[in-house]
Amino acid sequence: MLGWRRVVSAISAGCIRRLSMAKSKFEYVRDFEVDDTCLPNCWIVVRLDGRNFHRFSEQHEFKKPNDDRALNLMTKCAQTVMQELEDIAIAYGQSDEYSFVFKKKSRWFKRRASKFMTHVVSQFASSYVFYWKDYFKDQQLLYPPGFDGRIVLYPSNQNLKDYLSWRQADCHINNLYNTVFWMLVQRSGLTPVQAQDRLQGTLAGDKNEILFSEFNINYNNEPLMYRKGTVLIWQKINEVMTKKIKLPKETEEKEVEVTRTRTKVVPLHCDIIGDQFWEEYPEILAEDS
Amino acid sequence: MLGWRRVVSAISAGCIRRLSMAKSKFEYVRDFEVDDTCLPNCWIVVRLDGRNFHRFSEQHEFKKPNDDRALNLMTKCAQTVMQELEDIAIAYGQSDEYSFVFKKKSRWFKRRASKFMTHVVSQFASSYVFYWKDYFKDQQLLYPPGFDGRIVLYPSNQNLKDYLSWRQADCHINNLYNTVFWMLVQRSGLTPVQAQDRLQGTLAGDKNEILFSEFNINYNNEPLMYRKGTVLIWQKINEVMTKKIKLPKETEEKEVEVTRTRTKVVPLHCDIIGDQFWEEYPEILAEDS
Amino acid sequence: MLGWRRVVSAISAGCIRRLSMAKSKFEYVRDFEVDDTCLPNCWIVVRLDGRNFHRFSEQHEFKKPNDDRALNLMTKCAQTVMQELEDIAIAYGQSDEYSFVFKKKSRWFKRRASKFMTHVVSQFASSYVFYWKDYFKDQQLLYPPGFDGRIVLYPSNQNLKDYLSWRQADCHINNLYNTVFWMLVQRSGLTPVQAQDRLQGTLAGDKNEILFSEFNINYNNEPLMYRKGTVLIWQKINEVMTKKIKLPKETEEKEVEVTRTRTKVVPLHCDIIGDQFWEEYPEILAEDS
Amino acid sequence: MLGWRRVVSAISAGCIRRLSMAKSKFEYVRDFEVDDTCLPNCWIVVRLDGRNFHRFSEQHEFKKPNDDRALNLMTKCAQTVMQELEDIAIAYGQSDEYSFVFKKKSRWFKRRASKFMTHVVSQFASSYVFYWKDYFKDQQLLYPPGFDGRIVLYPSNQNLKDYLSWRQADCHINNLYNTVFWMLVQRSGLTPVQAQDRLQGTLAGDKNEILFSEFNINYNNEPLMYRKGTVLIWQKINEVMTKKIKLPKETEEKEVEVTRTRTKVVPLHCDIIGDQFWEEYPEILAEDS
Repeated sequence: MLGWRRVVSAISAGCIRRLSMAKSKFEYVRDFEVDDTCLPNCWIVVRLDGRNFHRFSEQHEFKKPNDDRALNLMTKCAQTVMQELEDIAIAYGQSDEYSFVFKKKSRWFKRRASKFMTHVVSQFASSYVFYWKDYFKDQQLLYPPGFDGRIVLYPSNQNLKDYLSWRQADCHINNLYNTVFWMLVQRSGLTPVQAQDRLQGTLAGDKNEILFSEFNINYNNEPLMYRKGTVLIWQKINEVMTKKIKLPKETEEKEVEVTRTRTKVVPLHCDIIGDQFWEEYPEILAEDS
Repeated sequence: MLGWRRVVSAISAGCIRRLSMAKSKFEYVRDFEVDDTCLPNCWIVVRLDGRNFHRFSEQHEFKKPNDDRALNLMTKCAQTVMQELEDIAIAYGQSDEYSFVFKKKSRWFKRRASKFMTHVVSQFASSYVFYWKDYFKDQQLLYPPGFDGRIVLYPSNQNLKDYLSWRQADCHINNLYNTVFWMLVQRSGLTPVQAQDRLQGTLAGDKNEILFSEFNINYNNEPLMYRKGTVLIWQKINEVMTKKIKLPKETEEKEVEVTRTRTKVVPLHCDIIGDQFWEEYPEILAEDS
Repeated sequence: MLGWRRVVSAISAGCIRRLSMAKSKFEYVRDFEVDDTCLPNCWIVVRLDGRNFHRFSEQHEFKKPNDDRALNLMTKCAQTVMQELEDIAIAYGQSDEYSFVFKKKSRWFKRRASKFMTHVVSQFASSYVFYWKDYFKDQQLLYPPGFDGRIVLYPSNQNLKDYLSWRQADCHINNLYNTVFWMLVQRSGLTPVQAQDRLQGTLAGDKNEILFSEFNINYNNEPLMYRKGTVLIWQKINEVMTKKIKLPKETEEKEVEVTRTRTKVVPLHCDIIGDQFWEEYPEILAEDS
Repeated sequence: MLGWRRVVSAISAGCIRRLSMAKSKFEYVRDFEVDDTCLPNCWIVVRLDGRNFHRFSEQHEFKKPNDDRALNLMTKCAQTVMQELEDIAIAYGQSDEYSFVFKKKSRWFKRRASKFMTHVVSQFASSYVFYWKDYFKDQQLLYPPGFDGRIVLYPSNQNLKDYLSWRQADCHINNLYNTVFWMLVQRSGLTPVQAQDRLQGTLAGDKNEILFSEFNINYNNEPLMYRKGTVLIWQKINEVMTKKIKLPKETEEKEVEVTRTRTKVVPLHCDIIGDQFWEEYPEILAEDS
């Protein structure tokens, strides 16, 4: 909605009169819109994925298997989404995907699924281009990327935790594979097809073994951000500022320290499959959330 | 989807084995996804709107009532959407909104509503930031904008034409109002509230009369882009290029003219309420579309 | 809704006061109902099927392959559905299934899918028991049968005609198979498994040949109701009644013939795949229907 | 599905060959069916209501305000529904409505909403006619009644309990009103309109007072079935039977008592708003249900 719009109650002359009458004649087409309200009392998850990001990552020379610039830009966009939109309790990201969890009791836009999906992906996409240069200093953005999104409802806290666990387990499995794959390509000089063949049918233990014996890498020492992905939660932050004030009975200004509590979106790279995370941050799933 | 992902059939050791087992244990959460396939043989319309664009337009000093830079940027983004996505037969835009019409027979992404909506708005939003500087040379983009989207199905050609007519009639009514409103504010020095009061209850004829008698403006001479909005259609363009070729029996290269036919997205600012437009471009509604 | 119900605006004493307050406290559960409005301007088809009618037909000793009593009872129930419910333009039945087609423009129950489905199957099911004895004179109904239903939308007339053609083609294919199968069982003394094996892989021509050479049956002379199923349409019927009236200037009553036009549901057993049927009854698909 | 149907893989001759080809040509219409799977891990409630039962109850001379025959027939039908269908954990009925609660984990018919709704209402409707004569001995059923149904999902146990409480509170409020209303009409000789006017604006306490002072009725002594409606639950019943058996080493048969445990649908007329009921029957809401 841009600028000043009016509901014009009656219009009477010439072409525009006809247009206005036409408009009311055409307005029946609004009845074709479908009510896509989400079931109340369910967690609403919107997950987005980069569109053709395999090609996108090659054209923009992403470092393999993980590019810190790309991962941090994704997280910056996700933070923007959490701050600009309402009622997001937690987000989880890995690779080129991010999941946003809206509170069970959210009444944002009357819980209309299309509103949730489109606001998330459009805010994310515009932020991706807007913040690109802060992360990819010398790498020009060649074209505007696309993202797709979907929405899923989870009735119980357990369902929601299992959803997030599913994404984190996926992160772990992919990252182990990719770590070995790219070592074989970058260090051992295998072609992608050769590396793929080499890994065909290997188990996790085999991959750990290859990393350790051939590349002297202990997978467990790889950065947490790669192995666990990124969790975004709201945290209270105490900010201490100095402020000049003049008390009534005094003549001089005095500097005082003021502590202000703000709520900020904070990234974590921790396990969310076990119970510990949920015990440490019980407010995320709290009933009034 | 980013980089190399594998379906790992079996994983056997330690923590990752457990994760992999966990993953399959968690995968039941996929069953909560809903099939949102659009009814076949219907036109699929995705309409997007700028989020809080009243504020956005003020912060970026849009010219009122119409800012050519803003309108042309919208159209550039819409063209990008039509070129990047599949099966869009026609688009129509005005103010901060754009409607995209996917073909009745489209099988793109199995006609999943969420795919249509999120691809449209994310591509549009990233393009908006990407192309901003080409249109707003000296005006910095202050923050990444958001867009919302919705999807509507229309079973018959008449329904679709009525939908597009509804949007164009809306354009006309709003633009007439805004044109007078901003004349009263910018030229006559009324406050917004005064201008609003002045226009309260006026008919189209009254507004035309105010424009003509007070500002010497014939509304019908206002630019078509403002009064009609923008229609985007596919058109075959003959491009004539000169090419140097060497014929077998000759020794010298010769310059020849080569005509190549390309399909391009072309903007029009014409009436789409009457029959003339649809008679001129019958392929838009053609049965195989 | 039974009897007299009141919206009681305020209740004040004891247990019932608490109940009434409780009721308003509980009423939030209504928000969990989903709007299941059907897309406007589409044909709405509700198809019902007998539940476990293989068992039902054996327990009630239906004649194989076709039992006139059972088929006529189905049609009687379908007629009742068309007469009791609104806006059904045509129905088609075969075996233990019936399809009801509601008009494109129907506004019955605001086009709510659940209303269409449940009214059709409940009216059909209660009629099935109610009219049973009129068709199965000496055969007791052993238990109340169940039916399932589904709803499908068709945007164009062609889609609707193709749907009905699909059901009639299904009727023909099944009936040919069943006719041969039961001849082999009843006349040649094969077991069901033997008959099935005999027909394994046979084409329509083979089946026709078996009927003709082994049982002297020309399939094309089988009753139309078996081969084509039953179409129910509305037809204007002229009913001629004799009525006694006394004219003002005469002293004696006189018998006069009065012709009254009524609209009735009429069963046909004709082809609906070709164009002829639709040309003969153009009002079924007429735009205002 | 009735009788023997075959998927005929290939058919080759004449008209039927064409029909078979036609059938596959028409089969695209199946793609217009919508997947209406219910969200997993939610309680599924199907509520049915009599259609035009105000008229139906007058034509069949139901006793007012409560007719035991009608209420008991409703309950008999609901029991049949619970026994014939799968996974119904509890049902609640009052007046001419009944609600059926399917288990959270039910996988019956892949949780398709249309299957749940249509099986419930069709089984109920056919049972209503089938069992009518057992309850309305000397009252002929004049025509087959209709019922409508709807489906609602409840994610949490609390939501489900609140739904059932809402219906029971509704029962209580209506029954108090109807009890006074019909006393005024039947005993005091008021017309329906007069009775309605008399009750306009009265609170629960006022109605109790009218009953007590004018008709010597203590509302709390009215039958529980009227005040609380009917709850149907599954209960284990021990049936003791005598059986004649012959032990190997003995020559004579002996009578022994055998206890068999069966699960039966049992009607209760108790409060389900408070906690007591749910504490007494914890298995209804048990997690594996």
